[in-house]
Amino acid sequence: MWGIIATWAMAYDGVLKGSKLLIDKHSAVDAIEETIKSVEDEPNFRSVGYGGLPNEKGIVELDSGFMDGDKLSVGAVGGITGFKNPISIAIKLSEESYNNFLVGSGAEEYARLNGFEVKNMSTERSLEIWREKKKRFSEENIRAYDGHDTVGVITLDTYGKMCAGTSTSGLFMKRKGRVGDSPLCGGGFYVDSEVGGAAATGVGEDIMKGCLSYEVVRLMSEGLNPQEAAERAVAEFSEKLKRKANLSRDISVVCMNNKGEWGIGTNIDEFSFVVAKEDMKPVIFLTKKIDGKIKYMEAKDKWIEEYMKKEIK
Amino acid sequence: MWGIIATWAMAYDGVLKGSKLLIDKHSAVDAIEETIKSVEDEPNFRSVGYGGLPNEKGIVELDSGFMDGDKLSVGAVGGITGFKNPISIAIKLSEESYNNFLVGSGAEEYARLNGFEVKNMSTERSLEIWREKKKRFSEENIRAYDGHDTVGVITLDTYGKMCAGTSTSGLFMKRKGRVGDSPLCGGGFYVDSEVGGAAATGVGEDIMKGCLSYEVVRLMSEGLNPQEAAERAVAEFSEKLKRKANLSRDISVVCMNNKGEWGIGTNIDEFSFVVAKEDMKPVIFLTKKIDGKIKYMEAKDKWIEEYMKKEIK
Repeated sequence: MWGIIATWAMAYDGVLKGSKLLIDKHSAVDAIEETIKSVEDEPNFRSVGYGGLPNEKGIVELDSGFMDGDKLSVGAVGGITGFKNPISIAIKLSEESYNNFLVGSGAEEYARLNGFEVKNMSTERSLEIWREKKKRFSEENIRAYDGHDTVGVITLDTYGKMCAGTSTSGLFMKRKGRVGDSPLCGGGFYVDSEVGGAAATGVGEDIMKGCLSYEVVRLMSEGLNPQEAAERAVAEFSEKLKRKANLSRDISVVCMNNKGEWGIGTNIDEFSFVVAKEDMKPVIFLTKKIDGKIKYMEAKDKWIEEYMKKEIK
Repeated sequence: MWGIIATWAMAYDGVLKGSKLLIDKHSAVDAIEETIKSVEDEPNFRSVGYGGLPNEKGIVELDSGFMDGDKLSVGAVGGITGFKNPISIAIKLSEESYNNFLVGSGAEEYARLNGFEVKNMSTERSLEIWREKKKRFSEENIRAYDGHDTVGVITLDTYGKMCAGTSTSGLFMKRKGRVGDSPLCGGGFYVDSEVGGAAATGVGEDIMKGCLSYEVVRLMSEGLNPQEAAERAVAEFSEKLKRKANLSRDISVVCMNNKGEWGIGTNIDEFSFVVAKEDMKPVIFLTKKIDGKIKYMEAKDKWIEEYMKKEIK
């Protein structure tokens, strides 16, 4: 059995590429790198990699995390600027004994010394969107953050190895140096090949408070199936935040266990994700809340078309 | 009931100051800030704040995290340079709606804009130690990391509010931009006033893989007493790392529940910590492994003298 699950419809092409590697018996590491690089390289997706939306200064700062479920090794970068594929740097960092999580100019120095490809990650479009928002901020004297669609991926290869990975440009208009949940082990991602893996997307400031990816994997280790685990972790933590902090912000999680069974949890109305498995070509699913319960169904072509248009505009 | 527990004997003076605030019915926030600032301000302690050991470039980069157990709000800084009290910046960040975790120059910008006191955090002694180590690294062509004694504190105030906080200069000779577990919610610290709190010290690269502080609080929420929770979390995760990654590196945790009961877990031979409570003046304890079991006892004056000498030399 092999499998991939990834957050958001934008991951579709990446999942397709990753699946091909898994079919050809490549490792879960190669598959996750290929999947995430594909999203990072696509300028039309505004919340990951090239063309990602800038911070308040107009600079694209990227976060990425990676975990190897066999060894529990972790690599991550936070607030890195000017490199083409943060996920590849995170994977490389997971091979170090120490200094696995690097941020800012230290992360950039490591990337340069290790020969990673440099790239100006802004596009004319991302800067244009930034200029408009900047203008609106100063006119209306309010700040509103959005654009927190992290690509989060879990892969299972034919040898039973699992990996988790994330990549994002973070909150649009975030402060310089802001790090979300995506490079945080336990918050944005977690995986143990003996159990399964999970990755999160949404408001990182909230996700990190719940160690949500860790909690989903833990619930699976207690015997819950992936859907129960993801649904319960997100629902219980969302309730807790409402009760304790009067907060109700976006949180979604995808997960897969080491049998290739998968599940999702979300507190938003419409969360999309992509799944591929040995017995199932890549499919984009879409959640709907029906009578308070999360249901998911295959996304219709018309929905996908609208989604892509929204990303591109 | 009020209480404080803190990692390492160096926290003694801080705990004394924090206790006085709690006796006078100040909040858990004020007490944790006072406790940790006291350690940060002391140049003799080589792993926290002023006089902390530098990174490989000779720069003192500091990590700090804070969590409010009533609201689950979190604030943290990673790799910040040139500010006197990182814990105060972390506390201030926990009051923001977004951008709660800032790293590097972005964290410094925030601190400047919010009027936090700047300070050159190197001392002649810390630079001298750094020069020696640098020379040894180049002569012996090996790298060895040490000096990972984070101050991690849990406070409980007379109103039942709990807080968790950490502060550290991280691994001595770490790479520029390296972030450990200390500013990571779930890894280096966690607290929920309905349950209790935990904070960790040791090799951050390993602690973050286990979400250890989160796990200890979770075990307490399942009904384990603090000593059982801390001991089990550290022992099980250390075993797992040995089995899966052939790793056996330092991990220690302190915790307290909302009744002021406390516990510790460690996989090292000699871990010191400080406890103060309504019915107990500040005491430095020291662990010993006896027949494979962790025992702790009050540290003898001679031991404390030796400890302080080692810090100061």
